[in-house]
Amino acid sequence: MAKSKWEYVKGFEQEEILLPGCWIVIRLDGHSFTRFAKGHDFVKPNDVQALALMDHAAQQVMKEFGDIRMAFGESDEMSFILNKASTLYGRRKSKLISLIVSCFTAHYIHSWGSFFPTKQLQHLPIFDGRAVCYPSDRTLRDYLSWRQADTHINNQYNTCFWSLVKSGLTGAEAQDTLKHTQADFKNELLHSKFGINYSKLDPRLRKGSIIIRQGKRKADEAGQPTQADCLAADSVVVVAPAASKGLEVLHVDLIQEGFWTSHPEILR
Amino acid sequence: MAKSKWEYVKGFEQEEILLPGCWIVIRLDGHSFTRFAKGHDFVKPNDVQALALMDHAAQQVMKEFGDIRMAFGESDEMSFILNKASTLYGRRKSKLISLIVSCFTAHYIHSWGSFFPTKQLQHLPIFDGRAVCYPSDRTLRDYLSWRQADTHINNQYNTCFWSLVKSGLTGAEAQDTLKHTQADFKNELLHSKFGINYSKLDPRLRKGSIIIRQGKRKADEAGQPTQADCLAADSVVVVAPAASKGLEVLHVDLIQEGFWTSHPEILR
Amino acid sequence: MAKSKWEYVKGFEQEEILLPGCWIVIRLDGHSFTRFAKGHDFVKPNDVQALALMDHAAQQVMKEFGDIRMAFGESDEMSFILNKASTLYGRRKSKLISLIVSCFTAHYIHSWGSFFPTKQLQHLPIFDGRAVCYPSDRTLRDYLSWRQADTHINNQYNTCFWSLVKSGLTGAEAQDTLKHTQADFKNELLHSKFGINYSKLDPRLRKGSIIIRQGKRKADEAGQPTQADCLAADSVVVVAPAASKGLEVLHVDLIQEGFWTSHPEILR
Amino acid sequence: MAKSKWEYVKGFEQEEILLPGCWIVIRLDGHSFTRFAKGHDFVKPNDVQALALMDHAAQQVMKEFGDIRMAFGESDEMSFILNKASTLYGRRKSKLISLIVSCFTAHYIHSWGSFFPTKQLQHLPIFDGRAVCYPSDRTLRDYLSWRQADTHINNQYNTCFWSLVKSGLTGAEAQDTLKHTQADFKNELLHSKFGINYSKLDPRLRKGSIIIRQGKRKADEAGQPTQADCLAADSVVVVAPAASKGLEVLHVDLIQEGFWTSHPEILR
Repeated sequence: MAKSKWEYVKGFEQEEILLPGCWIVIRLDGHSFTRFAKGHDFVKPNDVQALALMDHAAQQVMKEFGDIRMAFGESDEMSFILNKASTLYGRRKSKLISLIVSCFTAHYIHSWGSFFPTKQLQHLPIFDGRAVCYPSDRTLRDYLSWRQADTHINNQYNTCFWSLVKSGLTGAEAQDTLKHTQADFKNELLHSKFGINYSKLDPRLRKGSIIIRQGKRKADEAGQPTQADCLAADSVVVVAPAASKGLEVLHVDLIQEGFWTSHPEILR
Repeated sequence: MAKSKWEYVKGFEQEEILLPGCWIVIRLDGHSFTRFAKGHDFVKPNDVQALALMDHAAQQVMKEFGDIRMAFGESDEMSFILNKASTLYGRRKSKLISLIVSCFTAHYIHSWGSFFPTKQLQHLPIFDGRAVCYPSDRTLRDYLSWRQADTHINNQYNTCFWSLVKSGLTGAEAQDTLKHTQADFKNELLHSKFGINYSKLDPRLRKGSIIIRQGKRKADEAGQPTQADCLAADSVVVVAPAASKGLEVLHVDLIQEGFWTSHPEILR
Repeated sequence: MAKSKWEYVKGFEQEEILLPGCWIVIRLDGHSFTRFAKGHDFVKPNDVQALALMDHAAQQVMKEFGDIRMAFGESDEMSFILNKASTLYGRRKSKLISLIVSCFTAHYIHSWGSFFPTKQLQHLPIFDGRAVCYPSDRTLRDYLSWRQADTHINNQYNTCFWSLVKSGLTGAEAQDTLKHTQADFKNELLHSKFGINYSKLDPRLRKGSIIIRQGKRKADEAGQPTQADCLAADSVVVVAPAASKGLEVLHVDLIQEGFWTSHPEILR
Repeated sequence: MAKSKWEYVKGFEQEEILLPGCWIVIRLDGHSFTRFAKGHDFVKPNDVQALALMDHAAQQVMKEFGDIRMAFGESDEMSFILNKASTLYGRRKSKLISLIVSCFTAHYIHSWGSFFPTKQLQHLPIFDGRAVCYPSDRTLRDYLSWRQADTHINNQYNTCFWSLVKSGLTGAEAQDTLKHTQADFKNELLHSKFGINYSKLDPRLRKGSIIIRQGKRKADEAGQPTQADCLAADSVVVVAPAASKGLEVLHVDLIQEGFWTSHPEILR
């Protein structure tokens, strides 16, 4: 193609390359999702259908980009872990962030009707994204532990908060009740006042969603993949629908060693 | 909220800030759109409905992000120009790229059925994005001139190529015929062999789409906005639908001074 | 030359390019210069020889790197302004910072004995450096105004502080006296208590040092370069020694228009 | 201190932080050292005094910055390895590069006369610098292996080249003779034609200089530090002068495991 005299402006592009040899985390966050959740009557404190839609969209992203080793999701956020040896798109930061955000958004919207057949989208959900490099297995695992601990902390708080609100308190009163309280207090509150045994709540809510590839396992395990997972912790495995063949969604502890011993292929 | 001992991993985030005082261009490109176009039977060389859908999605992005001064689109790419004084999201690069890409993708998919009522999406379109800073009005205008010149060059080539193919040549033969030829040759070819007067083709195809805000004009101009635009060049103004109130789509020359004299508010 | 199997590690280098079309400021700062000044008995509040050595080193840097349009120095800091169109070393950030810091350090140390013939270096002075891009003449001029205003603010404060200390106050007492006081108070203090007319102090101390190239002027001006400069403000021109032919050091106001009208070649 | 209305320009500074958890290499290179070597009659192919001055300057840098674990030098380049856990200056890239380059330059020039008592500096040597992050021990070791292999390759070539030139060939003829030849050919050439047994050449020339800290060792080893080093390879230990107490300079192989087994403290 002919070139124009204006082509010099291409020289202003500054492409950042993510450091080779590092695990790449691409984390997506729902934009103004408090408003989005309210506008679409999401169940409080957790809307399981909304969480399942997040997981579904993440699986589609993992089908599109084979270099993603696993994903971890909670609430309206999703982290994708790219292989540290990945050379996908030359590890160009903007390219990776934008494609993954675009792909996730596309599937979230396209599959909305399958997860919420009776709700029309009132306005469109959008997501932001960022990329972070972790230079070692340890720092990557600490990242994932951070997000899973966050899942627990938020879920425990929100379960207390909405129980109090449903029992008649205002939002401000509920907030005051919980201010500066510790985990023990909150568990006791849930148990004594609302008859909720926190540790029996759906693991999805307490542990978030871990999405990994089945295909990486040995063939003979593939038939009963969930058995091995169950050893790791108090897992509940949601068998992925046909469309997501080869991927499985776990709601198990990944902070302890057990998970990583059971899934050596993730960090390999 | 309580903090976990893993929170140190937040320190690995490296946020790039786009240089203050510069025009910010966020350019989106369709990912594997050759395949997408083929899979959805796009008309060759140009599918006007597909172009209109691009423009529609861009308008929705501009409604969401008020700091966007204008957009320029051609084929499967769209450039958004953010005000050089914008402090939107602290000018964080990843945030701006990801939100705009996400918003654009969301509307493209959500409005697909309105533009292609008889076609189902076979697979989902996704877009990549990048951000580029331009430090002066001159360099920004040169960027836009570069893209508009590219629109013309590509369209002229594609019009010739597909005319040749429709006339019976193979793709390879058409390519050979056009190799190393100049603009004059191509115009003459279109005219003499296919009876096409290139300069009479739909300006949308030759000039791309310029999307600007009507609201920025003086009240008394607002009634007949398209008149002023027509002075600029061989414009055809597509009046934006109700949903995009306050935005207009122009297909006019922006390389010459005229456009910028008529629209001083864009660079103000 | 043969390549080794370890050469892949070169791929970890991430070179940052300074945005084209922007003015580049490389600012150097003395590292731990409070200690350095004390260790070498610098005169308080200002050691004119030390300032002259800074200016001398800056001139040598400007002789080495022709793309530097001007320099501005005060205290132990020096800013070099590179032409916005410069393509020196491909505008590689690390390269430009490191070469200019190295060159400046080299000359500072090598010329130490000429400026302090009776003082041995007790330990070696070192400098840090940074690069900042300014996209417009306005922002560059505001940068220089910022540094010159800082020169004045610091000098006024230090002149008061050391006058008080020399008159018998402790450092803490002097600090207390000056806390939260305005410029007027300080000028009055200097005048009434110490008989110092601030506006008559050596312009070098009040205005800092501006180093520009004579060679850029018209030939007929070259003979009496200082005349033109004097028009700009209350300048005192130190004629550069033979070694720095073609450069001149000014101590004039650069905040007002006058300086820039008199020196249009700097921003050209 | 009072703030000026121009202070907003500080917002244009964009500080890059080197990724936590990675080894940081700051590599310095002599700028135009071919010219510098010629201008100061450096012995060809290697000037041992010039190499010793490089090592000396590097030791002074290591005394100044305690987070440097080791340095590796050859010819006119020197690499400093900062502890991967270092938080020195917040891991700010420009700060680290500039301070280390400045410190190295300062000592190189200040100590010139001690290493070349009969040579005056004709013009001043300057150095550029860059920073590279390596996320793992493996990649760091590969970096160092790359530099040491480069030392050997360059030295072998230069030894051949200058032997040929001293035997009467022109530079161009010597270059032609060596073009595309392998290591074996060069060794044979040195041996048969010039009676040089390459493997018996001064290890400094073949292995470069490794500078490490003695202080990190156990007390009982401190008395005879060179013994342990000798086990690693064909080392020649230059005992550092008093000024560099606690540092030692080795000229040994670091590509094999032996060096790292003997010096576990470097990567700890």
